[in-house]
Amino acid sequence: MQKRLTGRIAPDRIRLMMTPRPPDGAVERLLALGDPTGVVSDAMDELGIAAGAISASVLKPTIPGTTMVGPALTVRNVLQRADPLEGARNGVNRMGEFEAHNLACPGDVLVIQGVPNMSNMGGISALTGKRQGEAGAIVWGGIRDIAHSRVVGYPLWSSEISPVTGKWRLETVEINGSVQIGGVRIEPGDLVVADDTGVCFIPRGRILDVLELVEKKAKAEEIRCKAIVGGAPVAEISRSDYGE
Amino acid sequence: MQKRLTGRIAPDRIRLMMTPRPPDGAVERLLALGDPTGVVSDAMDELGIAAGAISASVLKPTIPGTTMVGPALTVRNVLQRADPLEGARNGVNRMGEFEAHNLACPGDVLVIQGVPNMSNMGGISALTGKRQGEAGAIVWGGIRDIAHSRVVGYPLWSSEISPVTGKWRLETVEINGSVQIGGVRIEPGDLVVADDTGVCFIPRGRILDVLELVEKKAKAEEIRCKAIVGGAPVAEISRSDYGE
Amino acid sequence: MQKRLTGRIAPDRIRLMMTPRPPDGAVERLLALGDPTGVVSDAMDELGIAAGAISASVLKPTIPGTTMVGPALTVRNVLQRADPLEGARNGVNRMGEFEAHNLACPGDVLVIQGVPNMSNMGGISALTGKRQGEAGAIVWGGIRDIAHSRVVGYPLWSSEISPVTGKWRLETVEINGSVQIGGVRIEPGDLVVADDTGVCFIPRGRILDVLELVEKKAKAEEIRCKAIVGGAPVAEISRSDYGE
Amino acid sequence: MQKRLTGRIAPDRIRLMMTPRPPDGAVERLLALGDPTGVVSDAMDELGIAAGAISASVLKPTIPGTTMVGPALTVRNVLQRADPLEGARNGVNRMGEFEAHNLACPGDVLVIQGVPNMSNMGGISALTGKRQGEAGAIVWGGIRDIAHSRVVGYPLWSSEISPVTGKWRLETVEINGSVQIGGVRIEPGDLVVADDTGVCFIPRGRILDVLELVEKKAKAEEIRCKAIVGGAPVAEISRSDYGE
Amino acid sequence: MQKRLTGRIAPDRIRLMMTPRPPDGAVERLLALGDPTGVVSDAMDELGIAAGAISASVLKPTIPGTTMVGPALTVRNVLQRADPLEGARNGVNRMGEFEAHNLACPGDVLVIQGVPNMSNMGGISALTGKRQGEAGAIVWGGIRDIAHSRVVGYPLWSSEISPVTGKWRLETVEINGSVQIGGVRIEPGDLVVADDTGVCFIPRGRILDVLELVEKKAKAEEIRCKAIVGGAPVAEISRSDYGE
Amino acid sequence: MQKRLTGRIAPDRIRLMMTPRPPDGAVERLLALGDPTGVVSDAMDELGIAAGAISASVLKPTIPGTTMVGPALTVRNVLQRADPLEGARNGVNRMGEFEAHNLACPGDVLVIQGVPNMSNMGGISALTGKRQGEAGAIVWGGIRDIAHSRVVGYPLWSSEISPVTGKWRLETVEINGSVQIGGVRIEPGDLVVADDTGVCFIPRGRILDVLELVEKKAKAEEIRCKAIVGGAPVAEISRSDYGE
Repeated sequence: MQKRLTGRIAPDRIRLMMTPRPPDGAVERLLALGDPTGVVSDAMDELGIAAGAISASVLKPTIPGTTMVGPALTVRNVLQRADPLEGARNGVNRMGEFEAHNLACPGDVLVIQGVPNMSNMGGISALTGKRQGEAGAIVWGGIRDIAHSRVVGYPLWSSEISPVTGKWRLETVEINGSVQIGGVRIEPGDLVVADDTGVCFIPRGRILDVLELVEKKAKAEEIRCKAIVGGAPVAEISRSDYGE
Repeated sequence: MQKRLTGRIAPDRIRLMMTPRPPDGAVERLLALGDPTGVVSDAMDELGIAAGAISASVLKPTIPGTTMVGPALTVRNVLQRADPLEGARNGVNRMGEFEAHNLACPGDVLVIQGVPNMSNMGGISALTGKRQGEAGAIVWGGIRDIAHSRVVGYPLWSSEISPVTGKWRLETVEINGSVQIGGVRIEPGDLVVADDTGVCFIPRGRILDVLELVEKKAKAEEIRCKAIVGGAPVAEISRSDYGE
Repeated sequence: MQKRLTGRIAPDRIRLMMTPRPPDGAVERLLALGDPTGVVSDAMDELGIAAGAISASVLKPTIPGTTMVGPALTVRNVLQRADPLEGARNGVNRMGEFEAHNLACPGDVLVIQGVPNMSNMGGISALTGKRQGEAGAIVWGGIRDIAHSRVVGYPLWSSEISPVTGKWRLETVEINGSVQIGGVRIEPGDLVVADDTGVCFIPRGRILDVLELVEKKAKAEEIRCKAIVGGAPVAEISRSDYGE
Repeated sequence: MQKRLTGRIAPDRIRLMMTPRPPDGAVERLLALGDPTGVVSDAMDELGIAAGAISASVLKPTIPGTTMVGPALTVRNVLQRADPLEGARNGVNRMGEFEAHNLACPGDVLVIQGVPNMSNMGGISALTGKRQGEAGAIVWGGIRDIAHSRVVGYPLWSSEISPVTGKWRLETVEINGSVQIGGVRIEPGDLVVADDTGVCFIPRGRILDVLELVEKKAKAEEIRCKAIVGGAPVAEISRSDYGE
Repeated sequence: MQKRLTGRIAPDRIRLMMTPRPPDGAVERLLALGDPTGVVSDAMDELGIAAGAISASVLKPTIPGTTMVGPALTVRNVLQRADPLEGARNGVNRMGEFEAHNLACPGDVLVIQGVPNMSNMGGISALTGKRQGEAGAIVWGGIRDIAHSRVVGYPLWSSEISPVTGKWRLETVEINGSVQIGGVRIEPGDLVVADDTGVCFIPRGRILDVLELVEKKAKAEEIRCKAIVGGAPVAEISRSDYGE
Repeated sequence: MQKRLTGRIAPDRIRLMMTPRPPDGAVERLLALGDPTGVVSDAMDELGIAAGAISASVLKPTIPGTTMVGPALTVRNVLQRADPLEGARNGVNRMGEFEAHNLACPGDVLVIQGVPNMSNMGGISALTGKRQGEAGAIVWGGIRDIAHSRVVGYPLWSSEISPVTGKWRLETVEINGSVQIGGVRIEPGDLVVADDTGVCFIPRGRILDVLELVEKKAKAEEIRCKAIVGGAPVAEISRSDYGE
């Protein structure tokens, strides 16, 4: 079936109509770990996978206590060069993240390389993403209508909040191409793992390697936690390989 | 009736004894909209009203989930040039926001162009503001006793928090003059609209224009939200003028 | 009794095996005041004690609403100079805050001069600290596993959050030496007082002086709060020495 | 004649093989004005051309005292996601500004939307640009070998300096597409005007309009300068339209 | 004689028509010391004069190698709230530093608390200041036409450079009132001392005290320099009071 | 022969009385290369030596055009906790970089992990360093008396400039221990290489490895430069291994 496009972005700027799917069960297994970004970052370190984590001091969650896992559906926005007050009078909206909602499969995570000092996603957009079954979004740049997206239950991690619309200030120029956010380059289908500590991006081709090591490390951590609660001496539980 | 002044600031530095009142019903109508800063910013854009919004990344709310609307009662603080430890020994307090509390009418919002790296409003002051019937305060600079002002139910949006008093470090030099905060110039009586996304300042002379357009836009948004929930295709609901 | 050390740091780099204890009752009396950093900072100002407070805008609490008081058990971390991916492959962990947990007495507060852009304390470490009876920790630099430390009930004030481990990126070089954090120099045994407004460090030799003045000021504040609620005119309650 | 490409970037990512030329004489007329960015910015303001200037506090010149004017030949670099130490061992260089040198016409200005914390152009590259007859370059991100490019006489305005190569850290993904630098969006062929005060970007379609107004304003300024030196009263020479 | 005002600012906003003069000979004696900001800051420290110095990393000199000394003629600018493109069309210029030039006595230093991200003083203004015999200017905010003011020989220390005019973006609201710049409060007549290391502001009432101590310290430094060049052992010349 | 110490720091805090010497000829060979930080950084990349370079945007040179090479003699300063105005009255100077000058061998480079917002080295100190035959200094934190150190010909790379003395504000706590500066950890005897592009720190054990590769690369660069000047096509000279 052919999806009707929104027209917000030229069709040749949509690099993939569908975000590559993660391996079966990968999302569920990561969600089962609770707040996994620390152990995911460790596994990427040990497997030699570079530069894949961003701090929650930089990408702040709108709904603390949430863990989100899903494949990246990427969006790249750039500045318009125009007087925004004139743009507002003329009403020509160039924001294209609705096209991404349009293309989204259930479980996708929108990853928006946006523009600072303005909103790259508002409440109507969050509601639309929720209805489409998206897991949530990561936004480099501002977002708005925070209370609305919280009520809807659509979690966002963003670098900023701003009441000012991007409608006449930015332009969406690519969907499902490469994006870069906070020192990390992300490709469509990379697996996004986000919690209160930050966001990790697992390269698509390494998801299962990382997942296996993560589960092994999580088991060792569980053993160690029990030992701590059970009163084992610090000199023992502090060994790096305790429980492995 | 003549109010007794506090003496914290010379009477000739109080530009207006009473903050200009907003049009009847304007505060209530804006409060009825939920979290309105996004749509207020859009209406100002479309009406050609420049530079009127500040991000909640910059002015952070102490009581998330609150919406506050009210006319600006302005206060301008500047640094003292003095050794603060000597100032503390001598005990000469030059903070004058109590004079603003003294002059406040119910519903006023204190808008303080304060001094960074110190507190421009503490818990006792918040309690006083609450008793005077103020809606809350916007503070450029630090505030303190956060837990106290939360308990009291006096909401603040501030650029900083600091335990260090401004009593011997700053001086209040003007009440109900012009202030500038985060790239916005504000006059007494401008209407402050604040929520989790940020703060908008509507120029006093444009309050009804903005309000009318805001209500029209809020209605269109409601229609669009229903369509989204009802399953309308993304290509349809993403039209800019949907519901208008 | 001799404690078995963890081996994470050379024994000659532990300057004191036990953190100096605060005067009897000091911790409890400060905790009784609610959120005391504002009044503690004021007392230090008036007693001529310099540079002892850090804003909660800089050291952000992980568990808002908590007040923490206890003597500083200090830890100093520095960068390693090594390729972290190679470090991860080799698995040589140089983080030594576990040695501090090992030495901690109930009520101690870990004060870590850490390294930015990485985690200086994770969830396992927080759980260990909790079991050892520590009051919590202050960390200059990143921390991780925020959700875990919240569940455990171990409060932290940190300048950053980061999923990226410090294990192969930093090295603990000193325990219970001097540290400097956010413009304040802290010695082991200085009394840490932390709440939603920030963190104060009372020099060990001045704890009782500060405490006495703090209690006197807290009483005056209580009187003033009652007067405010009771309807006293602003011109009266705004006198600096009201209630003293 | 067909130019042989360098192979540093896929041919379909070169949007234009030749940068659009500015109107005849425009470059020379702007250079004749001395240090023109102030008056160019004023002319764009008065003609309603938005957001076209960047401060020399942000884009710092390597050769103070130089004025540079020429059409923008644009380059967009993005981060690689790779371990740079492994990249260096493997020696796969993805920097593509040499392709831009290859395509450059005499008088072109390279405008590079680069990557921070690394070099996007070094001394060999500057020498190559000089030989190709380029006027110089504007770089968002680091540059290196400053002493070399100064000796060669190839002026750069950059946001950073860094000894660390981009060869294994970045990838050039587009030539002669849109770029955004410091809050300004630039298209190939926009006219770059740079001096010690900053950089202006005149949209390609407005070059003659701006130039005409600039020359008119420059004449009025000359008249005013003579009046100042000649002793005219301040109250007279400070009239906005003096000399017009 | 009555000076004709420029009309750029209401006469009642000019707090003093003439900047208070420094003690006879004070300017010349400070200039004779070479680059005196370090020793001036030391003297203020020892005399208990708080917060009087700003780093040249913050206020950067346009003409390195210059020492400037003179009494502060203060100017305070604030943002306009207006669309600057509309302002430019209408041509209503609200910058008032020309009024300060108009009032300046030979040797005065303009100290402008300006607005960031725009120019608060351009080349025509610098030329006017030079003709009026001013020593130069200190500007918090941007300045432009750097090459012009260098040729004219009018030195500036500013926090920024920007090609973008303040004419339609700011408004001068006070002359010879208090200003605050980079954490220092300055009154008209305070003595400005600036060199490549930074800027000191000596309170008007303490100029002679500071000067005397400065000259005493400069003599001791000279003795010490001779001893160093003469080969005295480091252990000797490093005594704090060497030469005093 | 035993050097007489200055007493500014306890003898047991001097980890090495003499900085380890670099291999014979290494300094001269690096100086012969002109401005070598780019090629040194490349060689460290290729040899797998991590995190060894700092940008000249961060550590700014006081004497542009200078290349400096020499072994690191390290100094670590920390904040005092004291009222600086009281410190100045009492005159107890705790700055200890004079002890480093005392211990310096000709050619040493002082590398100071200093304290921000104050001076960690002044003109008298620079003169002393020059007389001792030091190559210059790298300072994390402020320096002052810039004009003096320029006249003396003692080059510094510092993160800041400040007129405010560190004498009563900081304390030197270690000489020839580890220091960390701008994300790099440095040991005494590491080879410092500094020019207009930045500063590289070559670990002491890798100096000859780096040097050899640097010289090989410099030769290839020379060949390439000749080819460029000689008119070789860009597609040829842009090959990564051209001239190797």
